[in-house]
Amino acid sequence: MELKELIERLDRLQAKKKAYSHATGMLYYDSVTGAPKGGAENRGNTLAVLSETVYELSAGEKTGQLLSELIEKSGELSPVTKRAVNELWREYERTKKIPESEYIEYQMLLNEAENVWHSAKINSDFKSFAPYLEKIFNTNIRFAGYFDPTEKPYNVMLDMYERGLNTERCDLFFSQLRKKLVPLIAAVSESSVKPDNLFLKQSYPVWRQRQLSDWLMEFMGLNRNHCAIGETEHPFTIPFDKTDVRITTHYYERDMASSLYSVIHEGGHALYELHTSDELKNTCLGSGVSMGIHESQSRFYENIIGRGRPFCALLLGKLRELFPERMSGVTEDMLYSAVNISMPSLIRIEADELTYSLHVMLRYELEKAVVEGSLTVSELPGAWNDKIKEYLGIDVPDDARGVLQDSHWSGGSIGYFPAYALGSAYGAQMLAKLKESIDVDAQIASGDISPISAWLEDKIWKHGSMFDPAPLFESCCGPFDPTYYTDYLTRKFTELYNL
Amino acid sequence: MELKELIERLDRLQAKKKAYSHATGMLYYDSVTGAPKGGAENRGNTLAVLSETVYELSAGEKTGQLLSELIEKSGELSPVTKRAVNELWREYERTKKIPESEYIEYQMLLNEAENVWHSAKINSDFKSFAPYLEKIFNTNIRFAGYFDPTEKPYNVMLDMYERGLNTERCDLFFSQLRKKLVPLIAAVSESSVKPDNLFLKQSYPVWRQRQLSDWLMEFMGLNRNHCAIGETEHPFTIPFDKTDVRITTHYYERDMASSLYSVIHEGGHALYELHTSDELKNTCLGSGVSMGIHESQSRFYENIIGRGRPFCALLLGKLRELFPERMSGVTEDMLYSAVNISMPSLIRIEADELTYSLHVMLRYELEKAVVEGSLTVSELPGAWNDKIKEYLGIDVPDDARGVLQDSHWSGGSIGYFPAYALGSAYGAQMLAKLKESIDVDAQIASGDISPISAWLEDKIWKHGSMFDPAPLFESCCGPFDPTYYTDYLTRKFTELYNL
Repeated sequence: MELKELIERLDRLQAKKKAYSHATGMLYYDSVTGAPKGGAENRGNTLAVLSETVYELSAGEKTGQLLSELIEKSGELSPVTKRAVNELWREYERTKKIPESEYIEYQMLLNEAENVWHSAKINSDFKSFAPYLEKIFNTNIRFAGYFDPTEKPYNVMLDMYERGLNTERCDLFFSQLRKKLVPLIAAVSESSVKPDNLFLKQSYPVWRQRQLSDWLMEFMGLNRNHCAIGETEHPFTIPFDKTDVRITTHYYERDMASSLYSVIHEGGHALYELHTSDELKNTCLGSGVSMGIHESQSRFYENIIGRGRPFCALLLGKLRELFPERMSGVTEDMLYSAVNISMPSLIRIEADELTYSLHVMLRYELEKAVVEGSLTVSELPGAWNDKIKEYLGIDVPDDARGVLQDSHWSGGSIGYFPAYALGSAYGAQMLAKLKESIDVDAQIASGDISPISAWLEDKIWKHGSMFDPAPLFESCCGPFDPTYYTDYLTRKFTELYNL
Repeated sequence: MELKELIERLDRLQAKKKAYSHATGMLYYDSVTGAPKGGAENRGNTLAVLSETVYELSAGEKTGQLLSELIEKSGELSPVTKRAVNELWREYERTKKIPESEYIEYQMLLNEAENVWHSAKINSDFKSFAPYLEKIFNTNIRFAGYFDPTEKPYNVMLDMYERGLNTERCDLFFSQLRKKLVPLIAAVSESSVKPDNLFLKQSYPVWRQRQLSDWLMEFMGLNRNHCAIGETEHPFTIPFDKTDVRITTHYYERDMASSLYSVIHEGGHALYELHTSDELKNTCLGSGVSMGIHESQSRFYENIIGRGRPFCALLLGKLRELFPERMSGVTEDMLYSAVNISMPSLIRIEADELTYSLHVMLRYELEKAVVEGSLTVSELPGAWNDKIKEYLGIDVPDDARGVLQDSHWSGGSIGYFPAYALGSAYGAQMLAKLKESIDVDAQIASGDISPISAWLEDKIWKHGSMFDPAPLFESCCGPFDPTYYTDYLTRKFTELYNL
């Protein structure tokens, strides 16, 4: 076949894949926003039908044939086309190893598990969710074996979210964090500085919090014409296209900071997706490259910007406007200290910047243990509670605030968590690099962060999935070194807690 | 092929059709609820991809072959299967007459037109919408010619929404209404009774109105586990399955009755969809049979129940609870009179029960004229305004409150409107029939309308699309006679206006 025709077919394949991903993503988005609960079974039927085509597009004979022919002509392809073909081939090889019936069954399992988890969390009833979680773990282990029977299953899973990551690198990374952060956390606990955040736990009407979200999204430069915000139990970001990205949040009347930082976090994910290069728009490369890089962006905005002193000054101005009574007597120092209180807590997404990594480490250790077979799913709640006690010294009152708190496992994401900590570390190193050319603090203080975002767009966002995460990171920051992260945290919390 | 295998393939075909209808319907629902505006083009691309399969399932060779074989074995099929095969065959024959490229182009046109109409309505800018509307009319005329080149195009369109309807029947029906209602409307105008509804136009906080919606849905017996409510510019109902039906409303702070009656109206549509028989669930017959029958249900709940005296008494109790200050001094009589004020107005969906038919008649006449070629699309706003002046004696201040007010045309529904008036007339005749076995007023007054709903479920809802609308109606009410409707209106408004 002529190269021109092959490329046309490739474009068509990518357009179809994108369309089905949009349709199935939409059904998911609806399931956690507008859908009535009782529609889950019907949605499952719909997803099963669509999944057949999704499978065919990923792993069908036609796709394999087309990609083989394109690979033969590799030398004649543009860099973007070549990368796209390689990525599709990788997916083809992996997916065709999964029997179609198992693939469809898994999609239906996830659809059901999402609902079961939701109810289980509300009722703090791990037992009702356990059989689903066990199936999800087992399916992931089985699939990992299909992908690469020579590799440890958990390494295969880690690699799916962050190409090149494995338990060896994770163990090393977490041990470096542990070494630096555990003494720091202990020092913070013993500090006589005890900041107050009670003023953040008063009543903040939800309709006013929605106005705060609008302001935050404007501050971040999120184009509302292409980025909408919804409300869900657990905040997340879902991109359908660079012209249509959704973020969600959860408003708690008596915990204003919860949605505040969810919006900034998800907004960071959204910025990445909204600013991939137009050249990649209709290819399989038009989305963020890995979970680690994605989390580096979301946590950069959430913590480095959002929990930094200059932003807190701006934020206070807005809060005084929206909640004048609540902010009466609150100073910049008080707000900055309040949003940076470090103390053992139960909920990962509400954990402070310093103890956060411990929450991630715990999940990493538990996932790894279940996948490696040294822990059963039914033992998870107990093991979870024991580790929380061991690392943070607190008791888990119920599974809703323990093992059931995150949506990742019910969504089939096993091996995802380490990327959160890795992303935080990536972000700190990016900050150091950014500071070489931009006065970051002054820029934030001015209220115009566009030069910072432009830098990230140029170094990270626009590249979409053109490069593997490790080389992408190195091209902008040099070799990865978690010391940047531990130094950043040490500086920040030493000052905050007068250590 | 064996009958058993043919039936399995038929089931598979129906399941696939339903899944694609769910997915595309979901994308539409999202486009008017959560989606950012700038995502329209991408959504259009997705719909184009899905439409290919939708087209293939409706009009592909395989479908034709399967249905032909089943038709040959007609004598061996169950009544449900036989009806399903006939309906699918009808659709097959119609759809295959549309060239696939034109079909896909039309889906994309509608997707775009929805957005353009939305902006045009906000800016009262008919000109920006006119080119799209012209294309929609032309496409509908062209398609009608494909379906049946021997029939007048507008008759083909009417038949699509209400099988068996044509301009002859419509002309006769509307002339009967005109004869009885015009003098009645004139008498109402001259009556010295001038009820006041200013108390409904005060500020009613939207969050409280949402609580009213919850109460209304509970009163109607809508199962929230299977029926969710959303918020959109223009209220509508969309069923994905009998286990997943969505209604929408639009809250106006200073017009509480607007959402109140939208919710009851859409709730009537939803009841029909939620109570089709389980036997029809996974067939193409599991949804309401026609727009006329559908509107008979929605307008039955909205007007006959919702604007009746016994319901107004119940409603007042709830309103006093939700809006004590606004309801201070309001009596049952005042509320009943206020929600039944009859006077010339601009907006169809807010028109009173008596003048409503004129709004429908106007649209019928205009659609018919454009399709028949005696009126151009660019002349529509002028012709609209002239007719409003002629029938209702008022001036249309802008196209937003004139020709741009409804979403039907932008959605491609031409020939739909007459069903609204027909549905109202059907409903009045059903009421007469219902009263033979149930004390309708007493039942409503008791707050428990379940016997009324059970009657409708038995006579109408459960049958889904098993029977054509006219025989279905006749099986429950005998031959159609609009006198029931005009008598009902005469009785009601004679008493209200002391004529």
